[in-house]
Amino acid sequence: MTKNQGRNRPNSAYKSKPSRDFDEPAEGWVWGRHAVLAAIANPRRDVKRLLLTLNAQREVPDGTAFEDMKPDAISAHLPDGAVHQGFAMRTTAPEAESVNAVVDPTHGILVVLDSVTDPHNVGAVFRSAAAFGVRAIVMQDRKAPPLFGAVAKASVGATETIRQVRVTNIADTLVGFREAGRFVIGLDGDAQTTLPDAIAQHGGPGLVIVMGAEDKGLRPRVAENCDLLVSIPTSGAIESLNISNAAAIALYSAFAARPAR
Amino acid sequence: MTKNQGRNRPNSAYKSKPSRDFDEPAEGWVWGRHAVLAAIANPRRDVKRLLLTLNAQREVPDGTAFEDMKPDAISAHLPDGAVHQGFAMRTTAPEAESVNAVVDPTHGILVVLDSVTDPHNVGAVFRSAAAFGVRAIVMQDRKAPPLFGAVAKASVGATETIRQVRVTNIADTLVGFREAGRFVIGLDGDAQTTLPDAIAQHGGPGLVIVMGAEDKGLRPRVAENCDLLVSIPTSGAIESLNISNAAAIALYSAFAARPAR
Repeated sequence: MTKNQGRNRPNSAYKSKPSRDFDEPAEGWVWGRHAVLAAIANPRRDVKRLLLTLNAQREVPDGTAFEDMKPDAISAHLPDGAVHQGFAMRTTAPEAESVNAVVDPTHGILVVLDSVTDPHNVGAVFRSAAAFGVRAIVMQDRKAPPLFGAVAKASVGATETIRQVRVTNIADTLVGFREAGRFVIGLDGDAQTTLPDAIAQHGGPGLVIVMGAEDKGLRPRVAENCDLLVSIPTSGAIESLNISNAAAIALYSAFAARPAR
Repeated sequence: MTKNQGRNRPNSAYKSKPSRDFDEPAEGWVWGRHAVLAAIANPRRDVKRLLLTLNAQREVPDGTAFEDMKPDAISAHLPDGAVHQGFAMRTTAPEAESVNAVVDPTHGILVVLDSVTDPHNVGAVFRSAAAFGVRAIVMQDRKAPPLFGAVAKASVGATETIRQVRVTNIADTLVGFREAGRFVIGLDGDAQTTLPDAIAQHGGPGLVIVMGAEDKGLRPRVAENCDLLVSIPTSGAIESLNISNAAAIALYSAFAARPAR
């Protein structure tokens, strides 16, 4: 099996919504009990406004500055249908970490999201990353949703604890990871090498797991710059796993295989 | 480790929305391209109406009876915000399978959902069940959402291929499974036995995997009637996995451990 195995074949198994550019707003809203309490505890968030109902005020640390507000008044600041549970924060995006800080292969597993833009999926990947001890999540600047709103909500606070790294070019970044001694696997539903076999051979803190958008899979240059493309074995009865479930399986597998188990 | 291990302890790890009773409507709407095309192909659906846009009409089998309709006219029949992609079907719920048809331990892995009511989660579990060759999904009548709308959409067609079994009492059903020679594991975030250890020892077509609601976990009588409670190992950095991700990990693990691998 070579790193080119599966290259240029359609990536049918991990489908998602089409990618789009983001404006990268400097500020945004975070809402929901878990998400806001975690954001309050995150020193990398610069809090612009904190809106809390009476009940919510009892849950924040003493000395926290906030605006007392009724639920409907909070809703008026947020997108339609946002379930805020009495908690909303206007905040900056959490400061991204430098790629240089995470390149060392002894520093822990990395996840790379290539053109994954659906906020619920990105949030869910953060949640799984926290559950399975991932070092950081690498995303392409302007192709990844900022860590507000639905991303923060779906992550249930994990956007505050798992660091993000934002790069301008995913493929070039993978080259750098490999030069530093990391081993890069890309998920591709058509790859012949299976995830468990790849992890048995190459698992460890130097692993990098790359996932593409559900509709298009990995972009060709990204796939080319992986050491190995791997698939999650399935029964074949259904075309695809969703990206959040595929990530949960991959990260769990890498975590469960760690030597310290 | 006994079957009682973890009994009566809070099940913090698999949280979801509170359970509620369902009316079990005899009919409902299914929408979205994948969901409707799969429902058309399912002989266990009795089609009451089929609404298709001009583009959608090209994708259904020759001879399919339908009503030609503009997208907005289709939307008017569906809940606000339903993304129908030109496809909507008014249909009966797919006929449930008898519990007797799935009790035999040679017939394949079963999933039991105990008070899991969130339609997206139930649909996602159907999707993972299809991906990993599960024989059927067992749910409690009146405590599980009917297989319409968001359930069918989130399952991406899997509600048409994976059979449902509806029972009046989950705990009694587990007793029957165990008497028939099946081995029943219940997911419980506080259990000391881990999922991989349990599957290494007890994996195979006779396995039954029981999952509770994310907020409350397994109900006490359901937990008591499992052979073993097991947890998914995590880093401990986050309180919980969502039910859809926990199911994906458990079903993948059981599938990947199958002897025929």
